[in-house]
Amino acid sequence: MQLLKTIDKDFEIRFKNLVSDRREATVDVSGTVRDILADVKIRKDAAVKDYTSRFDRYDLQSLRLSESLIAKHAAQCPTDVKAALELAAERIGAFHNKQLPQDIGYTDAVGVKLGLNWVALSQVGIYVPGGRASYPSSVLMNALPAKIAGVERIVMTVPTPRGEINPAVLAAAQIAGVTEIYSIGGAQAIAALAYGTESITPVDKIVGPGNAYVAEAKRQVFGTVGIDSIAGPSEILVVADNQNNPDWIAWDLLSQAEHDPSAQSILITDSETFAQQVIAAIEQILTTLPTKEVASASWQKHGAVIIVNDLAQSIPLLNQLAPEHLELCINNPQLLASQIKCAGSVFLGRYTPEAIGDYLGGPNHVLPTARSARFASGLSVYDFLKRITYLECNQQALQTIGQAAITLAQAEGLPAHAGSVSVRLP
Amino acid sequence: MQLLKTIDKDFEIRFKNLVSDRREATVDVSGTVRDILADVKIRKDAAVKDYTSRFDRYDLQSLRLSESLIAKHAAQCPTDVKAALELAAERIGAFHNKQLPQDIGYTDAVGVKLGLNWVALSQVGIYVPGGRASYPSSVLMNALPAKIAGVERIVMTVPTPRGEINPAVLAAAQIAGVTEIYSIGGAQAIAALAYGTESITPVDKIVGPGNAYVAEAKRQVFGTVGIDSIAGPSEILVVADNQNNPDWIAWDLLSQAEHDPSAQSILITDSETFAQQVIAAIEQILTTLPTKEVASASWQKHGAVIIVNDLAQSIPLLNQLAPEHLELCINNPQLLASQIKCAGSVFLGRYTPEAIGDYLGGPNHVLPTARSARFASGLSVYDFLKRITYLECNQQALQTIGQAAITLAQAEGLPAHAGSVSVRLP
Repeated sequence: MQLLKTIDKDFEIRFKNLVSDRREATVDVSGTVRDILADVKIRKDAAVKDYTSRFDRYDLQSLRLSESLIAKHAAQCPTDVKAALELAAERIGAFHNKQLPQDIGYTDAVGVKLGLNWVALSQVGIYVPGGRASYPSSVLMNALPAKIAGVERIVMTVPTPRGEINPAVLAAAQIAGVTEIYSIGGAQAIAALAYGTESITPVDKIVGPGNAYVAEAKRQVFGTVGIDSIAGPSEILVVADNQNNPDWIAWDLLSQAEHDPSAQSILITDSETFAQQVIAAIEQILTTLPTKEVASASWQKHGAVIIVNDLAQSIPLLNQLAPEHLELCINNPQLLASQIKCAGSVFLGRYTPEAIGDYLGGPNHVLPTARSARFASGLSVYDFLKRITYLECNQQALQTIGQAAITLAQAEGLPAHAGSVSVRLP
Repeated sequence: MQLLKTIDKDFEIRFKNLVSDRREATVDVSGTVRDILADVKIRKDAAVKDYTSRFDRYDLQSLRLSESLIAKHAAQCPTDVKAALELAAERIGAFHNKQLPQDIGYTDAVGVKLGLNWVALSQVGIYVPGGRASYPSSVLMNALPAKIAGVERIVMTVPTPRGEINPAVLAAAQIAGVTEIYSIGGAQAIAALAYGTESITPVDKIVGPGNAYVAEAKRQVFGTVGIDSIAGPSEILVVADNQNNPDWIAWDLLSQAEHDPSAQSILITDSETFAQQVIAAIEQILTTLPTKEVASASWQKHGAVIIVNDLAQSIPLLNQLAPEHLELCINNPQLLASQIKCAGSVFLGRYTPEAIGDYLGGPNHVLPTARSARFASGLSVYDFLKRITYLECNQQALQTIGQAAITLAQAEGLPAHAGSVSVRLP
């Protein structure tokens, strides 16, 4: 953990280093992934089964999980977890429903009809990690926006290492209405979704988090299919005054740190005393936290506390850091919020721990990491819709605007463009 | 050019081959591009100048084009071209203005405030090719949506091979309100925009078409900055009955063929007689067309004519082909249009040649190619906006939904997530 103060002489250079800190894994898996993709493209199901046997230590009879197996596993999900998932689905559904956009259509002054229609993607694949990071909440966060957008075919892949499957993941799939599920993972699952196999019809877009192999596979199949963003390690930035309970803020910072040793938690505060209280609280919680090994590694290596003179100073800093998650634990948080230009999702006030948004606040928890909130957004209904524009001229309208198009086509040295207009003019 | 008929026995296999026809360049430039990016990252301006000298045969004093030089060149744009660009800007602006979306914000039944704000990207770079493919229309199509979205800093790069610059490109920049222009191109321009140099502050997203080196450079800097799609060779699919003038349809097919030997023009019609008339008209036009070398190569190698029994049969075919441009040259084109699921932009009726959309119809001409209309959309105001979601619980709301979040956090093995909620509950 490092402590920075804006009043220190070396603040600018240290802050710049913090902003440019790359926490991604540096192992190059592109060659391995390329080989797996090429193999699945040719040998299809047989290749997928071989890699599943090798990497997941599990021999698949059928790639697809049968209806009865899904029901059997889902039934093992504890009742309270199922109820919580149902509440989450309801709240996530309500928020994402409000994202459904309106088509545009009008006739302009010269009689040209033009517009833009939003159309759902036909088929998408959702990648769900297996083993420890197999999160039912991610199933909801990926599947529900697709469902609400109107995607007809939603395919899920989830590996079952050594045959293990998380009942809550299947319960979440049931709640989200996902019925086509394949128990495969890794780069081989991405290849199967992108290219298709004997058992799997290819999809048009693949979303969902995964390990370094999955991320690289998504990068390599991009173009053949669409992908969501390439997610990096999680981040949280908490802006807090000294009116907070230091314990609460400590838990918030640790809630991201426990995800991954490469995760990053940053506190910005105007009180050094408060900062020291939070740091002490973190040390205290870490003594007993079951995930202390991961959380401690993250906090030690990537944690940071920034002391500012005035919380207004935090605005340019947070816009440069462009954090995935941003908490504003202050009074009247809307005042600062209106100045935020770069963040994935914002959590306002003293009673909105980021974890609420991870599960059931309503907004999506798939968010831009590694400063990509400068140009990217969280997953949404829009990611499962396309825009198709249209244009219709009648004879009169073409006469009104056609000559200008001819002029431009000639200026660009494209005579057939010009000809296709002029041949229709009197 | 190949002729397919749905009644032929081998139609399915031939159509499948047509759909999977990859027309992209296969030269691997990734190594060269990687070297250039790495060099610019370290040597900055000096490296950019060296590559400009080598590839563009031009020794730059300053990377940035001065205000007076911009004005001087723009003034050389012919009056009629300038007037046509102004009309185009007006029409493109009017259509894109209608895309500005509404923020979402509400308080739900349990007292949680939540919402989604659309925020403009702060700074974007527009790549404009130099030389022959230096199109002023592309300047408008890339810059105007950014301007309308509210992007504060719009940077343009346009190479000046041997010092040559297209006055119409600078006139278009003036009309679009772009004032920060650098006379550089290639992978070195992409590197400069992504990483920054002594003269160029880095941007957050890079858009615009380019050659294979530019496309590969954009692919490699993706993540450091956002990019638009990687554009492939142009495509047009025309659905036409025998009530059309064959000459008109021939010009339409050639208007895409003249872009690139790898471009593709496809006609679907229910009349073989009409098809033969169009084919004959194309041969006739090609005898004198100034761009006949390119257009003929494209038509010979990638052109196709598909004869269907009934135009309704064209719907599943066109949705599989997912063309960049789709013309429906029929009566009541809206009837077919409502069934279109995959296309970049649609041109309706007999008086809407695709070229109108290239210049001044209103919708964008930067469109998804190579079947990516299955999952991607044309450039729009949305591409220059981010969505930032927010969530605010008060004490009572957190008590209402908090326990469910704790249950899910525990089920996912994330105790600090659970703790950040439970510590705030009574």
